[in-house]
Amino acid sequence: MRVRYRQGAAQLLAEYPQFVANEPEKWQGKWYERFKNDHPIHIEIGTGKGQFIIEMARLHPEINYIGIDMQVSVLSMALDKLIENPLPNLQLLHVDGRTLTQYFAEGEIDRIYLNFSDPWPKAKHEKRRLTSKNFLATDEKILKPNGEIHFKTDNRALFEYSLSSFSKYGMILEQVWLDLHNSNYEGNVMTEYEEKFVAKNQTIYRVEARFPITN
Amino acid sequence: MRVRYRQGAAQLLAEYPQFVANEPEKWQGKWYERFKNDHPIHIEIGTGKGQFIIEMARLHPEINYIGIDMQVSVLSMALDKLIENPLPNLQLLHVDGRTLTQYFAEGEIDRIYLNFSDPWPKAKHEKRRLTSKNFLATDEKILKPNGEIHFKTDNRALFEYSLSSFSKYGMILEQVWLDLHNSNYEGNVMTEYEEKFVAKNQTIYRVEARFPITN
Repeated sequence: MRVRYRQGAAQLLAEYPQFVANEPEKWQGKWYERFKNDHPIHIEIGTGKGQFIIEMARLHPEINYIGIDMQVSVLSMALDKLIENPLPNLQLLHVDGRTLTQYFAEGEIDRIYLNFSDPWPKAKHEKRRLTSKNFLATDEKILKPNGEIHFKTDNRALFEYSLSSFSKYGMILEQVWLDLHNSNYEGNVMTEYEEKFVAKNQTIYRVEARFPITN
Repeated sequence: MRVRYRQGAAQLLAEYPQFVANEPEKWQGKWYERFKNDHPIHIEIGTGKGQFIIEMARLHPEINYIGIDMQVSVLSMALDKLIENPLPNLQLLHVDGRTLTQYFAEGEIDRIYLNFSDPWPKAKHEKRRLTSKNFLATDEKILKPNGEIHFKTDNRALFEYSLSSFSKYGMILEQVWLDLHNSNYEGNVMTEYEEKFVAKNQTIYRVEARFPITN
């Protein structure tokens, strides 16, 4: 996500430790303590300005959500919204998606959302795609057995790549949507990007993929 | 495929046993004898009027092809073309795709093509789709270990279904094309249907899926 530098963003995050844990590694394996319940935890990697995760948290109070982004400027905009309308079941996390095993214990997470992830179109940047195998290996560690990734994008090449990448990793494609906004899928919550793409009549792709139970 | 009834079609097939085996179960496990070589065998299930398989056979003399259709009228039109331009590496087969284990031995086939298969859109007809699990179980039996299905269609719902069906069966999606005719895929051979769809600017989907090696 391209965003302008926002002055004071890091400081803002530091000022709201109740929404953005300032020593997040301390919560590894203990997020239920932070949420004060043992509800399932769904995370979004690359949460950006937060529209998706905030709306999800509002709609599903029985689920705990964590919106993760490594870019302080956009995450601070998600924080703005959370300060205005606090939600007990939503936390933000300012860390790199590569390092998630430092902040979550094995099997601590129930579901991962990836929305409009950076396509990194050049072959030499394949490893940076959030649906490439190294990221999937990290995701698998923090997810419960049989945990799911729900991924949507407008980028055809990234979606083609991701379907194959999930499959080669051994994941099961539970369901695929090749034109989400002209389908019977109900309850779709849009990201900021998605609203723009849909206004331009661009195709949105979606998949729900599940890790296998390994022995 | 909707086709008009063609008078004399069955008789025409019977008159050319060199192109359409008249007792095909006799060749089970012995197609290499019929082709007089041990080249890999690729089959197309639902070969229709034969444009695809004829062109493939022409382009790839090192592969043996068998075009299969249960509808005598369309298959007789493929036969017309073969009579006019015989190809030593192409056979036609007038049988039902459900019964392929009667005509092929275990592991006798190297690759299966499915092109613009009937979508059977109603849920109650799922079992009739050529990419549903009962057909995949038959395909797996006649294919070599790690054998592939190459499938293309213009039907979005069928493609969505098929990606998931392949994946749930345990197949690996080697590569996916969500807009074949606006991709860098080379060497595409078009079917009669495909030419019409492409002329109307419709999206063509394609996937190469591989069966796993089972123990």
